Amino acid sequence: MEHFDIAIIGTGSGNSILDERFTDKRVAICEQGTFGGTCLNVGCIPTKMFVYTAEKAEHVRDTARFGMDATLDGIRWNDIVSRVFGRIDPIAVGGENYRRSSPNVSVYDTHTRFGPTQPDGRYTLRTDGGEEFTADQVVIAAGARATVPDAIRECGVTYHTSNTVMRIPDVPKHLVIVGGGFVAAEFAHTFSALGSQVTLVIRSSTLLRHTDDTICERFTDIASRKWEIHSHCNVIGATEDDDGIHLKLDNGATLDCDTVLVATGRVPNGDLLDAEAAGIEVRDGRVIVDEYQRTTARNVYALGDVSSEYQLKHVANHEARVVRENLLLDWDDTDSLKQSDHRYVPSAVFTDPQIAMVGLTENQARAQGYDVRSKVQDYADVAYGWAMEDTSGIAKIIVEADTGKILGAHIMGYQASSLIQPIIQAMSFGLAGQDMARGQYWIHPALPEVIENALLALCGEPPWPPARRH
Amino acid sequence: MEHFDIAIIGTGSGNSILDERFTDKRVAICEQGTFGGTCLNVGCIPTKMFVYTAEKAEHVRDTARFGMDATLDGIRWNDIVSRVFGRIDPIAVGGENYRRSSPNVSVYDTHTRFGPTQPDGRYTLRTDGGEEFTADQVVIAAGARATVPDAIRECGVTYHTSNTVMRIPDVPKHLVIVGGGFVAAEFAHTFSALGSQVTLVIRSSTLLRHTDDTICERFTDIASRKWEIHSHCNVIGATEDDDGIHLKLDNGATLDCDTVLVATGRVPNGDLLDAEAAGIEVRDGRVIVDEYQRTTARNVYALGDVSSEYQLKHVANHEARVVRENLLLDWDDTDSLKQSDHRYVPSAVFTDPQIAMVGLTENQARAQGYDVRSKVQDYADVAYGWAMEDTSGIAKIIVEADTGKILGAHIMGYQASSLIQPIIQAMSFGLAGQDMARGQYWIHPALPEVIENALLALCGEPPWPPARRH
Repeated sequence: MEHFDIAIIGTGSGNSILDERFTDKRVAICEQGTFGGTCLNVGCIPTKMFVYTAEKAEHVRDTARFGMDATLDGIRWNDIVSRVFGRIDPIAVGGENYRRSSPNVSVYDTHTRFGPTQPDGRYTLRTDGGEEFTADQVVIAAGARATVPDAIRECGVTYHTSNTVMRIPDVPKHLVIVGGGFVAAEFAHTFSALGSQVTLVIRSSTLLRHTDDTICERFTDIASRKWEIHSHCNVIGATEDDDGIHLKLDNGATLDCDTVLVATGRVPNGDLLDAEAAGIEVRDGRVIVDEYQRTTARNVYALGDVSSEYQLKHVANHEARVVRENLLLDWDDTDSLKQSDHRYVPSAVFTDPQIAMVGLTENQARAQGYDVRSKVQDYADVAYGWAMEDTSGIAKIIVEADTGKILGAHIMGYQASSLIQPIIQAMSFGLAGQDMARGQYWIHPALPEVIENALLALCGEPPWPPARRH
Repeated sequence: MEHFDIAIIGTGSGNSILDERFTDKRVAICEQGTFGGTCLNVGCIPTKMFVYTAEKAEHVRDTARFGMDATLDGIRWNDIVSRVFGRIDPIAVGGENYRRSSPNVSVYDTHTRFGPTQPDGRYTLRTDGGEEFTADQVVIAAGARATVPDAIRECGVTYHTSNTVMRIPDVPKHLVIVGGGFVAAEFAHTFSALGSQVTLVIRSSTLLRHTDDTICERFTDIASRKWEIHSHCNVIGATEDDDGIHLKLDNGATLDCDTVLVATGRVPNGDLLDAEAAGIEVRDGRVIVDEYQRTTARNVYALGDVSSEYQLKHVANHEARVVRENLLLDWDDTDSLKQSDHRYVPSAVFTDPQIAMVGLTENQARAQGYDVRSKVQDYADVAYGWAMEDTSGIAKIIVEADTGKILGAHIMGYQASSLIQPIIQAMSFGLAGQDMARGQYWIHPALPEVIENALLALCGEPPWPPARRH
């Protein structure tokens, strides 16, 4: 039976672990799907290529109030799909070929599970292709998968998830999206900008429920003016015929559409690995890890969506860096082992308006006992917001009242995912709000003045220059 | 003769000084032009409103490669002008009315100069309107003005500066811009996007000569593909007839156009104040100040373009805050007086591509004796750059080789003026490049990853994730 120093299950962030220090290690890489994982193939990367295209379309539509007339003559969907995947697919293939050509690496391309651990402590791995091998160290980086409610999966109608919806043959006429989280919000934006009528079916009353209340409420309000939203309901069945798909909701309504996107959440893939055979604790599909990314089984590490409470690529990358170091250290030497840093994890939703956030929501901060001050700063009150004729952009910053310690920031609007970076940096390095506001220059009239003015308001200083207000 | 506690000459940043602590002071405010100064009326604010409009137009033109067809049917120039100044002009009027309605403030609306100081040390000020008054403290915030070469001014043809070009009656068919600095670059972008043929006449071989060589060269290259550039030459004369304006260059060429914009620089207005009558040192029009914004005359402060080597609104605002504090302190008490911080002054040029910079250029860093490392990171190598199909965006970061201390950053591309803020923050608070790169999360796949990857390269780490490269 072939033996490896290291086995890595999953080629998303897992594929980034090997650097020149691992050249002498024999490594098994297990990938049942496409090299590169969710982010590259069906996640962050292609979605943002579609989203940016959608933004372009919206720019064309939004010219009249700027004193220009423009017409969006047509969307060449196939050209968009070809451009996106014509770029991505070769990268996945290249990634796989690169690994296959590495003399110290073997690639296993069917589903891999743990078998009973060998008497000498080596881990046994078995593939659906009938192969079996052992490894001293294992990295579980097997990601997560989209969930589909039984009522939809079992009724036999055609539906899509984020895995497939970017490769459909044409822009839907009427797209129904089941779910109201970030995947739903991003695709609703993309397809509506490209010409689809979009309807959302959500279980609660708001979209993006995980965001700060101010963002959640305002975004839901904006969304409800662009998209039809059926709230407080679920799909209980569906039929499909030549006229399309007919979704039955538990509020009695029927939705007729040509395309259904299910975006009801993602679950970690830890339940698919027979991990218990190796003594690895898994809860609700999530592989349990400690701050060193160690699982409950000696010399087995895990990272990314399969084990993290954050399903975010930048977190998976960070954890992969930690695992990379720790693989080369002694499992028991906690003085040397690297720890993951999950203190200030930002995230963004590339919908319209774009949303970015880091730290606590205002409710979370109050629940943790902080005496908080918060400020909601309108983009419309800074010069660049004027230039953009912005009507909805906001930056909400939450600080501890006494100290000015920044507890959280929640931005909705143009460039949100860029504007938040200085706040991530301030939080990560312990820079208080008043120091951040006044200890550096903010280019006038650039958009980061939104952040500056929010911070100034929290310091009790008037926005600058005050004359603008008159 | 009326006497004031404080006289403020100029209502740009100067108008922002008075806060509630000055309610008991009698204040004279002198503004010969429009309240709000350059930034509000003819500078940052309106130019960015035009520039953003221009960006919209370029978005419409740049759809085909994204798989969409769009047409820019027309530019309604008058609507653009009305929108911009319909918003700005009332703010200027409102600012003036607010001051005039303040019981402790008198407004003088003609040009003001110093007269001989009174025997008791009070400063004498005289207006072109024939008024004369005295003040204990004076703030000179009189700004700067556009210069026009003699050859153009004296030949009698119609020309514009940034003061007037935003209110011309129509988009020029052929606009000749004399000069190659930031004003030239911004208006070239705006007018070419709105449909003008643009020609630039520059004295040297490159545009934006003050920028880092990498930016300067690449920007000039990009510009030369969109705009006609006559380098190494000057305008030596001009005539105007029914066919338009005919500019004679010293290389023998003649340029026929309908509109001329002179953007050859700005000089501080310190030469227009008879400042020497009050013992205020002025050099080449610039009022000399120390680190407390004190001029050479007791109790006379200066700020902004009239005294600063930076002609930037955010610097003027900063200096105004310093002066505001110092007016309330003892002139001689340097332990208490506030100092201006001019260590890390960023700036941006809102041209196409947008440019932002902070700190030293690579040449300056080498000249100062630093052992430098620099990295030019392409936008095209990060995921958001892919989404944008970006071909020209770069972030150049310069660090001290040994320590990783960030010496300068120079960004050219989409959102440059936002992307640079974390670097301004790092430099201002002494955060080294390697700590900035690794001590915080960078949202994937947001555009700040350009900065992250540049910093990683400078740390000797590969960009993340390395698999993207295959």
